[in-house]
Amino acid sequence: MIRVNGQAIDSINARDRGLAYGDGVFRTLRTEAGQPVWWADHYTKLQADCSVLKLDCPDQGTLRDEVCQVAEAGQGVVKIMVTRGVGARGYAVPEVTETTRVVLASAMPQHAKSFDDIRARWCELRLARQPRLAGAKHLNRLENVVARAEWDEPDIFEGLLCDDQGAIVSGVMSNVLWAKQGELFTPDLSQCGVAGVARMRVLRAAARQGIRAHVDRFTPADLLAADEVMICNSLIGVRRVARLDDTIWLPVGWTPLLNDALYENLD
Amino acid sequence: MIRVNGQAIDSINARDRGLAYGDGVFRTLRTEAGQPVWWADHYTKLQADCSVLKLDCPDQGTLRDEVCQVAEAGQGVVKIMVTRGVGARGYAVPEVTETTRVVLASAMPQHAKSFDDIRARWCELRLARQPRLAGAKHLNRLENVVARAEWDEPDIFEGLLCDDQGAIVSGVMSNVLWAKQGELFTPDLSQCGVAGVARMRVLRAAARQGIRAHVDRFTPADLLAADEVMICNSLIGVRRVARLDDTIWLPVGWTPLLNDALYENLD
Repeated sequence: MIRVNGQAIDSINARDRGLAYGDGVFRTLRTEAGQPVWWADHYTKLQADCSVLKLDCPDQGTLRDEVCQVAEAGQGVVKIMVTRGVGARGYAVPEVTETTRVVLASAMPQHAKSFDDIRARWCELRLARQPRLAGAKHLNRLENVVARAEWDEPDIFEGLLCDDQGAIVSGVMSNVLWAKQGELFTPDLSQCGVAGVARMRVLRAAARQGIRAHVDRFTPADLLAADEVMICNSLIGVRRVARLDDTIWLPVGWTPLLNDALYENLD
Repeated sequence: MIRVNGQAIDSINARDRGLAYGDGVFRTLRTEAGQPVWWADHYTKLQADCSVLKLDCPDQGTLRDEVCQVAEAGQGVVKIMVTRGVGARGYAVPEVTETTRVVLASAMPQHAKSFDDIRARWCELRLARQPRLAGAKHLNRLENVVARAEWDEPDIFEGLLCDDQGAIVSGVMSNVLWAKQGELFTPDLSQCGVAGVARMRVLRAAARQGIRAHVDRFTPADLLAADEVMICNSLIGVRRVARLDDTIWLPVGWTPLLNDALYENLD
């Protein structure tokens, strides 16, 4: 099911700036029984990302209604895209624009239904650092596409990415975090990467439980020295990295702890 | 006028990866009397850019026919977009994809009809360096949108961009070049920027005329020391920069010389 500007049509104008320039933002969220999970956080993040691009964010009630209209009956995935809409030729933003909003549902992928530990690899691609866009989930995602194309082994679930200075940033489709000696660590995302809602909720839960969390620039060596390495996003929750290339970790209990905190409530 | 996969429709599937990720490439070309200008070079560049993203490039004859079908009678602009087409959710490229091609015409903008000297400014935004995508005209153009939004003075025609190491790269919508002591200079684009067809034709013409051209990393100071500074693209040809912020240059004859070479033939 799909809604484009509230209508049950599955196409957008070919002159939309979302297509021409990737001039827009998106969200991917989980739905349970036709309701969005972590809605308030997703909407807050959508507002923040719209504001990075100076886009008008759609009305919250309208958007939530559309999410519920398209959502599958059981578990499902809904993607929201907001673009700057149809524009004249050229990079300059027209004085008057009407954003395009796309709300589309898809089935929950099989891999997102399990809490199995996962296997990861390092990607060759280095993320470019663009502080003016960092953290936002905008529609310019070619780096993710190119990085994801580096492997096709079905048992490798995720690729980890560093920036061009060698700092670890994230997974291709997830944020990364790790625990060491009772504390949590996750990369700073002020230079590149997407600051996801699941990561934000983990950090919030850690703060609530008095767990010290370090958000900073780290190297792959920092991660490799961890007690437990995890990835997270809104579909998969927190998943333990059991193997990263040739490095293997045994579980020490952080992943279930953080998942419990993450799913403490679904609002 | 527009063609989407050969059909006279003005919309694309909302699940197209061109919208979702900017997973595609584009060309903007000039048409004269319904025929594409510099067609062979544009098609060669489209092929090269498709190959960067491992996209199937549309058949040359089909594409040229569609350009002619949509082109305005007199002077006009045609934009070609090629995307990876409709895909399942997720960054992984589906095993079987069918590219989407969009061919759409618009009127020649007023500013592209003149050969007047132009005024430029330096942009604050620094382009991020991503060698895996550099040079290609892909659909991830948010940096250009954000940089173009830095000014709205109608008499400023173009903004010049440096990368995060301070090397000059290009204009927001053009390539940049300059002349000094009888030789030409233009930035290397192996780290970021778009290697446009007009720039390529200028370099080819210079080689033919025995003018030495340097393609390298340069600083703004190198450009400021030039005898004549120019920008170029497929719509505007070569245009002289008469003023860049507070620096003013008088013409010394390079712009008409290079324009003559550029328009020596329209094929």
